[in-house]
Amino acid sequence: MYSLTSTQALSRNDIHIILNRAQEYLEHDNFPTLCGKVAILFIEPSTRTNLSFQMSAQQLGLQVLNFSPDNSSFIKGESLQDTLETLAAMGVDIAVIRAKGDWPAMVDTNNLPIRLINAGSGVHEHPTQALLDALTIRQEFHDFTNLKVTIVGDVLHSRVARSNFDILTKLGAKVQFAGPPEFACEGVVSLAPWVDFDEALLDSDVVMMLRIQHERHQEGLVINKEEYHRRYGLTSARVAKMKKSAIIMHPGPVNRDVEIASEVIHYPQSRILTQVRNGVAIRMALLEKCLMEDYYEQLVSTEWSYISKRKITATSFAH
Amino acid sequence: MYSLTSTQALSRNDIHIILNRAQEYLEHDNFPTLCGKVAILFIEPSTRTNLSFQMSAQQLGLQVLNFSPDNSSFIKGESLQDTLETLAAMGVDIAVIRAKGDWPAMVDTNNLPIRLINAGSGVHEHPTQALLDALTIRQEFHDFTNLKVTIVGDVLHSRVARSNFDILTKLGAKVQFAGPPEFACEGVVSLAPWVDFDEALLDSDVVMMLRIQHERHQEGLVINKEEYHRRYGLTSARVAKMKKSAIIMHPGPVNRDVEIASEVIHYPQSRILTQVRNGVAIRMALLEKCLMEDYYEQLVSTEWSYISKRKITATSFAH
Amino acid sequence: MYSLTSTQALSRNDIHIILNRAQEYLEHDNFPTLCGKVAILFIEPSTRTNLSFQMSAQQLGLQVLNFSPDNSSFIKGESLQDTLETLAAMGVDIAVIRAKGDWPAMVDTNNLPIRLINAGSGVHEHPTQALLDALTIRQEFHDFTNLKVTIVGDVLHSRVARSNFDILTKLGAKVQFAGPPEFACEGVVSLAPWVDFDEALLDSDVVMMLRIQHERHQEGLVINKEEYHRRYGLTSARVAKMKKSAIIMHPGPVNRDVEIASEVIHYPQSRILTQVRNGVAIRMALLEKCLMEDYYEQLVSTEWSYISKRKITATSFAH
Repeated sequence: MYSLTSTQALSRNDIHIILNRAQEYLEHDNFPTLCGKVAILFIEPSTRTNLSFQMSAQQLGLQVLNFSPDNSSFIKGESLQDTLETLAAMGVDIAVIRAKGDWPAMVDTNNLPIRLINAGSGVHEHPTQALLDALTIRQEFHDFTNLKVTIVGDVLHSRVARSNFDILTKLGAKVQFAGPPEFACEGVVSLAPWVDFDEALLDSDVVMMLRIQHERHQEGLVINKEEYHRRYGLTSARVAKMKKSAIIMHPGPVNRDVEIASEVIHYPQSRILTQVRNGVAIRMALLEKCLMEDYYEQLVSTEWSYISKRKITATSFAH
Repeated sequence: MYSLTSTQALSRNDIHIILNRAQEYLEHDNFPTLCGKVAILFIEPSTRTNLSFQMSAQQLGLQVLNFSPDNSSFIKGESLQDTLETLAAMGVDIAVIRAKGDWPAMVDTNNLPIRLINAGSGVHEHPTQALLDALTIRQEFHDFTNLKVTIVGDVLHSRVARSNFDILTKLGAKVQFAGPPEFACEGVVSLAPWVDFDEALLDSDVVMMLRIQHERHQEGLVINKEEYHRRYGLTSARVAKMKKSAIIMHPGPVNRDVEIASEVIHYPQSRILTQVRNGVAIRMALLEKCLMEDYYEQLVSTEWSYISKRKITATSFAH
Repeated sequence: MYSLTSTQALSRNDIHIILNRAQEYLEHDNFPTLCGKVAILFIEPSTRTNLSFQMSAQQLGLQVLNFSPDNSSFIKGESLQDTLETLAAMGVDIAVIRAKGDWPAMVDTNNLPIRLINAGSGVHEHPTQALLDALTIRQEFHDFTNLKVTIVGDVLHSRVARSNFDILTKLGAKVQFAGPPEFACEGVVSLAPWVDFDEALLDSDVVMMLRIQHERHQEGLVINKEEYHRRYGLTSARVAKMKKSAIIMHPGPVNRDVEIASEVIHYPQSRILTQVRNGVAIRMALLEKCLMEDYYEQLVSTEWSYISKRKITATSFAH
C-alpha cells in the first residue's frame, strides 16, 4: 500500500507527477469523487494543517474521522501500532498523522493494512508542506535549475526546512540557510551553506521565512522578539533589496513583526496565501495517490509544459 | 459578498424575507442542495448554537469544518484577520464566528473573500438568535404592530436582549425591559423603558426570560439564585397572571428554578423548544442567503400572508 | 420509538436478528443509504467506541453531530433530559450516549421524540460491546449451546462483563468469571460461578480478558501490574494450555503485558481485531434498527443457517 511518511522515498519524477495532479485540481472544478475513509490523528495540535487535510478529504468525497489526543482516550495505554491496527480493522483506508516525535520510526508497516501520510513528525519531516512549497515555486519559475532558495530562521528545529531542502534539491534548486548562528549546527551546515541573511537577499529567487516556534524551544534563542525582527526579520527595507522577480514564502501561521513585518505579508511578492491554497490541492493529490496507487500515473497529465502555459488565477480553485 | 455581522444592516423587509425562507424550510421536506464550505469558528464555546449551525449546514449539503480554540493552535500568534484570510485561501466560503469580544470591529472585510456570520459577539450582537425569536413570535401573532414584548433579566450583559430589541422594534413591536434594577444602566434605559416585572406580566404578549450568565459576570449580581428566582423568576404563580394569549420564551440553555421554574418549561405557553427548532431553519436561510446573494429574494416566496395561513405543525420540520 | 439502553429488553430472537443484519453488512458492499441525524454525546470520553459509531453512521449516509463535554457548554446547567429535548427539537433522530453514571435511569423517555442508544453507562451496561462480542463468537462456533465462556479480570467494575453475561446467557452459553478474588463480590458471584483462572483455561471455548481500568479504580486493586500479569495475565504459557479450538477476546484498548502478553495479541486464536471490525457492523445494524423500527425484521434475512455457511473474509468488510 502506498504511504508517504518521508520525502526520501520520492524521486524527482514522483514529485512532478504529484505537483501536476495538484495543479490540475487548481485549474478545474470537477474533482473526482473517491470512495474511502480517512482518519486524521493529530497528537501534536495544528489546526491549519488539520483543516487543510479535512478540506482536501471532503473535497474528494471521502469520509473523515477527526480526532486529537485532547478529546481522546484512544491511544491511552496503546501503542501507535495498536491504534493503527484498530483503525484498519474499522475499515479506515488512510491515517494522516502528526506527532511530536519521529513517529514513522515507531511503526512497523509490514502487514499493516492502512496507508499513512506524514502530516509532521517532530523536527524531522513535513512532506506535504515541502510539496506545496515546491508547487508554489514551480508556478512562479517553471524550472528549478539554478534557482536560489534561502531558508531563514530556526533551521535546526524545523521539519519544514529539512523536507524543503530534500525536495527542492532533488528538483534542481540551490538551497541555502540563514538566521541566528546558534542554529547553524553541524547537522544543518553539512546539508547546505549557512550564509549571511542580508547578503543572501540580494540574489535569492525565493526567500522562505520560517516560523519562530515559541512552543517548541524556550531554550536556544538568546535574543528577544524585537531583536530577532531587527536582525533576521523580513522588513520592508530588506524586501526593497530583493531581486524584482523574487518571491516571499512562509509556512504560516505568521508571527507578525517577528520573522516578518506585518505590511510585508500582503506585498505583491508574498506567496503566503498561495501556499495555503496550494496546500489543499497537494493534499487532495496525495490522498488520491494513496487510494489509486498504481493507476495514479495514468490519471495525471504528465505534460507539465502544457499545463504551465495555462493561466492560473486565484479564483480558479476557490470553487 | 453578503455577510451578517450585525442586525443594524437588516431592514424590516430583509428580516421578513429571511423569516419567510426559514418558514418555508419548516413546512417542506425538500431542501435545496447547495455547494459551499462553512467553517465554524467558536472562540467562546457554545455547543447549542454550534450544533444548530452544524445541523443547518449539513441539511443544505454544505461541507463543514468545525474548530474551537480548545483543540486549535490556529489562531495562536495570528490575528482573526489572518485566520480569515487563510480560511478564504483554503476555499472556505462562509465563516461562522462566535467570540467573547466585539470581533466584527476587529475585521476589515474589504477585499476579504469570505462571508461572515455573527454567531455571537461579546455583549453586543447575536443576530441569528434575534431572527429565530422573531420567527417564533411571528408564527404566533402574525403581526408585530403594538405587540408588547418584555425582556427580563440581565439586559445589561445580554447580546440576546440587544439584538432582539433592534429586530423587534424594526418589525413594529413595543419592547420593554425588566429585572434587577442594578442592570438598568443608562445605555439600556435609553433604548426602552425599564418596567416592574410583575406589573409588566399582566399585559405582555411575549415574556422573554434571559439566561443568567454565571460565567459572564461574577460581579454585579448581589442576590443569590433563590432570591433571584423569588423576585425575577417566572414561577407558576406569575404565569397565572399572564394574558391567556401570551407566550413564554427563553434562548436556552435554561437554569432550572433560577430564571424560570422547572414546571413552566413545558407549559403550553412555552415556546422554548419551538425556538430551538426555528433556530435550525433560520440558520439554513442565512447560510443560503450568504451563498445566493442577489438571487436570494427571487427564491423566497414573499407572500407572507399566504404562508402564514398554512398550518404549521411541530413535526413538519422534524424530518 | 425504538431505543436500546439495556440488553435486558433484547430477547434471544431480537439478538439473532441484529447479528444477522450485521453479518450481512460484513459480507456485502452495498449498504443502504438512510436518511437521519445522529448526535454522538460522550460525557465519558472513549474514542474507540466514538469512532466506531461515527464510522457506522457515515457508512449509512447519516448526518453526524459529534460533541463531548470537553468542548461543550451544552449540558452546563441543563439536565440530560433538557439536552435530549433540545436535540430532538433540532431534528436529531438518534442520540448515542456514553456517561459515567447510570444515565438511562435519569431520562424519562415518555414523549421524548428521539431514539437512544447506550454506548456505555457507568459500570452497568455496554450493549453494543456485548452484541459485537456475541457476533464474534457466533462467527466462530455457530451455536452457543453449552459453549463455555470465561470472563477474566475486574468483573466487578466492568459493564462489558455485565452486558456480555446477559446476552451470552440468553443465547445459551455457559458464562463463568475469573480473576482477582477481591472482585468476586456478592452481586457478581450471584450471577455466575467464580472459578480458578488456570483451571478454567483448560476447557473454555472463549477466554475473554477484560481491560484493567486504571482510570476507574485506584482503590481495590492491591497488586501491581507485574503481579497482575503473573497471576491473571494471558501469557503464552497459559495460551498453550487452552483448547485447540478456543478463541481469545478483549474489548480493547489493550494494556500490553498487563491483562494480556504483547505477543498473544496477534496469535491465531486472537479475535481482538475481528471484534473491532464487527463493532462497526453491529452499530450500523442498530442505527438502522432505530430508524426502521417495525420494518426492520422484514429487511433482515432470518435464515442464519444460510448466512453462516457463506465464507467470511477479513477483507469483505474493509471496503
